[in-house]
Amino acid sequence: MIQFQCDYNEGAHPKVMQRLLETNMEQTVGYGEDLYCESARRRIQEACGNPDLQVHFLVGGTQTNTTVIAHLLRPHQGVVAAESGHISVHETGAIEHTGHKVLALPAHEGKITAAQVENLVLEHRADSSFEHTVQPGMVYISFPTEFGTLYSLTELEALSDVCQKYALPLFIDGARLGYGLASPACDVALSDIARLADVFYIGGTKVGALFGEAVVSKSHALMRDFRYSIKQHGGMLAKGRLLGLQFEALFTDNLYLDISRHAVNQALRIKKALQDLGVPFLMESPTNQQFPILPNDAVERLSKKFLFTPWQRVDESHTAIRICTSWGTTAENVDTLIAEMQNLAIS
Amino acid sequence: MIQFQCDYNEGAHPKVMQRLLETNMEQTVGYGEDLYCESARRRIQEACGNPDLQVHFLVGGTQTNTTVIAHLLRPHQGVVAAESGHISVHETGAIEHTGHKVLALPAHEGKITAAQVENLVLEHRADSSFEHTVQPGMVYISFPTEFGTLYSLTELEALSDVCQKYALPLFIDGARLGYGLASPACDVALSDIARLADVFYIGGTKVGALFGEAVVSKSHALMRDFRYSIKQHGGMLAKGRLLGLQFEALFTDNLYLDISRHAVNQALRIKKALQDLGVPFLMESPTNQQFPILPNDAVERLSKKFLFTPWQRVDESHTAIRICTSWGTTAENVDTLIAEMQNLAIS
Amino acid sequence: MIQFQCDYNEGAHPKVMQRLLETNMEQTVGYGEDLYCESARRRIQEACGNPDLQVHFLVGGTQTNTTVIAHLLRPHQGVVAAESGHISVHETGAIEHTGHKVLALPAHEGKITAAQVENLVLEHRADSSFEHTVQPGMVYISFPTEFGTLYSLTELEALSDVCQKYALPLFIDGARLGYGLASPACDVALSDIARLADVFYIGGTKVGALFGEAVVSKSHALMRDFRYSIKQHGGMLAKGRLLGLQFEALFTDNLYLDISRHAVNQALRIKKALQDLGVPFLMESPTNQQFPILPNDAVERLSKKFLFTPWQRVDESHTAIRICTSWGTTAENVDTLIAEMQNLAIS
Amino acid sequence: MIQFQCDYNEGAHPKVMQRLLETNMEQTVGYGEDLYCESARRRIQEACGNPDLQVHFLVGGTQTNTTVIAHLLRPHQGVVAAESGHISVHETGAIEHTGHKVLALPAHEGKITAAQVENLVLEHRADSSFEHTVQPGMVYISFPTEFGTLYSLTELEALSDVCQKYALPLFIDGARLGYGLASPACDVALSDIARLADVFYIGGTKVGALFGEAVVSKSHALMRDFRYSIKQHGGMLAKGRLLGLQFEALFTDNLYLDISRHAVNQALRIKKALQDLGVPFLMESPTNQQFPILPNDAVERLSKKFLFTPWQRVDESHTAIRICTSWGTTAENVDTLIAEMQNLAIS
Repeated sequence: MIQFQCDYNEGAHPKVMQRLLETNMEQTVGYGEDLYCESARRRIQEACGNPDLQVHFLVGGTQTNTTVIAHLLRPHQGVVAAESGHISVHETGAIEHTGHKVLALPAHEGKITAAQVENLVLEHRADSSFEHTVQPGMVYISFPTEFGTLYSLTELEALSDVCQKYALPLFIDGARLGYGLASPACDVALSDIARLADVFYIGGTKVGALFGEAVVSKSHALMRDFRYSIKQHGGMLAKGRLLGLQFEALFTDNLYLDISRHAVNQALRIKKALQDLGVPFLMESPTNQQFPILPNDAVERLSKKFLFTPWQRVDESHTAIRICTSWGTTAENVDTLIAEMQNLAIS
Repeated sequence: MIQFQCDYNEGAHPKVMQRLLETNMEQTVGYGEDLYCESARRRIQEACGNPDLQVHFLVGGTQTNTTVIAHLLRPHQGVVAAESGHISVHETGAIEHTGHKVLALPAHEGKITAAQVENLVLEHRADSSFEHTVQPGMVYISFPTEFGTLYSLTELEALSDVCQKYALPLFIDGARLGYGLASPACDVALSDIARLADVFYIGGTKVGALFGEAVVSKSHALMRDFRYSIKQHGGMLAKGRLLGLQFEALFTDNLYLDISRHAVNQALRIKKALQDLGVPFLMESPTNQQFPILPNDAVERLSKKFLFTPWQRVDESHTAIRICTSWGTTAENVDTLIAEMQNLAIS
Repeated sequence: MIQFQCDYNEGAHPKVMQRLLETNMEQTVGYGEDLYCESARRRIQEACGNPDLQVHFLVGGTQTNTTVIAHLLRPHQGVVAAESGHISVHETGAIEHTGHKVLALPAHEGKITAAQVENLVLEHRADSSFEHTVQPGMVYISFPTEFGTLYSLTELEALSDVCQKYALPLFIDGARLGYGLASPACDVALSDIARLADVFYIGGTKVGALFGEAVVSKSHALMRDFRYSIKQHGGMLAKGRLLGLQFEALFTDNLYLDISRHAVNQALRIKKALQDLGVPFLMESPTNQQFPILPNDAVERLSKKFLFTPWQRVDESHTAIRICTSWGTTAENVDTLIAEMQNLAIS
Repeated sequence: MIQFQCDYNEGAHPKVMQRLLETNMEQTVGYGEDLYCESARRRIQEACGNPDLQVHFLVGGTQTNTTVIAHLLRPHQGVVAAESGHISVHETGAIEHTGHKVLALPAHEGKITAAQVENLVLEHRADSSFEHTVQPGMVYISFPTEFGTLYSLTELEALSDVCQKYALPLFIDGARLGYGLASPACDVALSDIARLADVFYIGGTKVGALFGEAVVSKSHALMRDFRYSIKQHGGMLAKGRLLGLQFEALFTDNLYLDISRHAVNQALRIKKALQDLGVPFLMESPTNQQFPILPNDAVERLSKKFLFTPWQRVDESHTAIRICTSWGTTAENVDTLIAEMQNLAIS
């Protein structure tokens, strides 16, 4: 079976593996205070264009979201998010487990707007029983979203402005950050993310690392004592250097963006082939996730050779599926998929 | 600097690295449902002598303790532990963060007794305002303890009996399990642990893996829905196979115990050398952690060449230090340490 | 100003006050273990037609909801509720503060259906990543709802059946229970509530007591150790007898239902008067809360003499308001309100 | 049976009951925003000598402790307290339930010292793995303590100084505040408490009210959004005026201190009588709780006529008991107790 069901099917990029291997028997101190972590921090600061950024390394995405959000909120506050946001639906209530409500907003293609956030704040303040409702305390968005869509620079700036206006920290979940930044449709640079987000993370797990996420913040005040929170949430890896080594490799010679571009290109090849066949899409995604709407029998026949994710029943006879590429997707596998689709004359 | 300050200075055992490398570009499904995890589970069941055991893989120790304890307790219950237990002192209140009190008992050399547990339960029940106090809900011990000491089989059986008598699940933190089982002073087998504990874990992070802990339980009732808890606590690794591959390697050809025995042997060589020099110890440890009491000036001179952990000031002129060996400690480094100690004529 | 903005404007029914006064200097043991609490429990058991019911007394509604829900759920579970349910919107995230997500369902006039609950459970079970989402663990409904509407006996039985089918405890928030049971439109008896709910509470705060809610359950298994939870959530009143005395009085000579009926009758008089004036209603409520839709200028003029709650803007020139009556509402005040409405020729 | 087992055996002081009764059918707005609460706030500000103090009303002690502590701490912080403190032992882990560890210090007669607090902070900061341990985030003391003992003004000032030095809010649990302030041994005034504590509360439940505690703070920054926390913790009484009315009565014509003095005087009469009989005490208490050490047979015979609390077994044949007086204790009952003790020739 050829797998397109997610972007964590393979291990790590060979250059990442090589660094882990060649340093394997070196001795370092633990908990992220070694020289490899230090080096990775500097490279990330450089890539973001700001030497004053705080950088911390955690193991996985749910852990990172939980740790950051629990660190930033006061007990009576909630986090504003798209109702389709990862924290709203796919983390087994990890945010609520730390005591906070996810204030879910209706989303359009996975995105929320500055106007929605402002309305929520103003409605909360205007409510005569406001103290009986959860106070909006921060804003969470994903870039790219869970549907592969992207915020434009203008949209991000508007969100950042409204967050600043109402003193709401803006947190960007970048589990797939590379696949957004490397898209030809993206007008946002890493330095923009670093400038507009109060806290964000650079996803490694889905973009070339074995595992690992790099939390980045311009605000030393918000991140005060953050290492306590990392430890409390089980995210302080004993052999922290494993995270440093991986991010050092990913931020050497532009590897992170190069391998992201490869993934996006493969996804866009699939998209183009399906468009040529006249296949409609559930939504317009310019990144590594594509959501074509296929006849049910085509879905069934494809599923004999390929793993992908059934996403949503569209009507009696059609289903939207998710096809995911990654840094590890081979052109050959994509060729095979496209050929099979053409062969089936899907439309 | 030669490092003896902890047992996670190096990466992973070469055989573990090799398995990660040779499978790196294979595609597998995520979240621990791949064939490598399945294979690792079977090997662990075999090593424990019970094919019916549940086995789950998590990333790190604090995360594992938190996830298991939060899963087992009801909201009004606390976990009984030694006051020196890892969950009592070194997890930034992770247990309390999930809503539960650690009911800390005075410990002798890191250990608690069946009698102490029984007394606690009986005192709680006899208390006229018992509903105003936290109900003991489970028992946590470490094997080996945080001081390298071991429970005897008799002690473990007594604890298990009293836990069963009062319906308290017994949870054994095996972050360093191999270093206990491989000690010549140990009369407990892995199958005993699996039989006596309701839940325990086999530490990988400190014993040959890059990272990872294998939670094992004989009770399907206690572990019902445990995968939800793993996800909620951020412990569900996307590329779960990384954990399966590592534990598969560690439980092939007795690797786990062999490399543990190596570590213990190196520690006992250091212990012997220091005893020969007439150095006293803070406590009698038969495992990979040793706590010699040294003159302050010897501590200072040793610290120019070696990293170790100052543990406790004993008197004006003496300090107990912790020296840790691991699967990765070389005999050469131990030779160097011993020679330096003899050279300093420490006593 | 005459107040119709809520059902807790006054103190307590005179018979309740009289009991508090005449027993004031008696000495009793604390924490609900006195004879008055015992007597109140028996009267409630009798009123419910089941001598085996557990009865506990707490101080307020949010506290009761939080304590019951946190007691019943396991950590990875959430509580299913109407999106308009009190726990969803008006408790400052108290449920989330205890670690649990409120799984909000779209509501019709404040109510959810058995089919909705069943669908939610089935969708959860069918989800391939079900362990990444919150498990439905219990169902919460309000009777009457926050909009004054009522479940019919048939609807309640269907909900109870589906809850039993999927092992979800059914919890009924009866903050205004009397105002539901006393409605001429109600075909549900207190004994039905006690039979169909796994846990419910009889509201005192809004129905004749100074404060206090009586939690009732047919399930000793679910309520095991509930007094620990009451204490942990700050609901164990030192002078517990105050709760016992109040509920004893309310459940003597049918007082609870009699004063509830008075409140409903006053509300229905207002409703009738407005209907006669041709005023539409936001929804059809047969209980003590009415939601007429009035022209904005009528709202403004009424607000000079009366307190009520602006509820929802309906269009440019109309607003729905909430008018609440209670056990303490006088017929005179209702006459004055009706006269003023007629005088304004509202329509 | 005459009851001396606690200070909440009776209802409320008659003047408190009278105010509740005479205002019973008045209509007021809810949630503590009525005129009676406003008036009570002003009277408390006056009694404390500071018109700028924030004053909030909650229902009970455990609820108040939990709400204040959860409001003040950040997630990785714990509250420093005496190991005998109410939050350490008698609140069913309510503090831990909100996610925070109680950092328990050994206590002498229920008290902790400024030096202990400073040592704890310095040790935490000096710990090389400080981020792996809970950060001290505030200090909790009880005045009087759970053993009836008092901090001197000098001791309180030292604690306040050290708290300020290390930016730790000082929170004083005043569940029995009146019985401390009214003691002839007390050199601390209410205005001192208000000046030295960052937050404290004036206990009503044990000192003349039916129920209720008044939280007082000089710091608007610390108390920002505190009403959200009150609601979240179930402490926002719908009929908030009940709390306002009671505290207004207690702070009219010095009632609070007068009735406290009565209770202390009765306790000191008992103490004197026992001292005259040669009875030793577990500790020297100058307030309403006394802890005489009695022969077991005397304890048994006394318990036929009186309720009191067996506190601690002292030796084979002696037990310390707790005798509590309150605002409601009659001189006649005290006479009866003393006569019986003399009759038994206890010693």
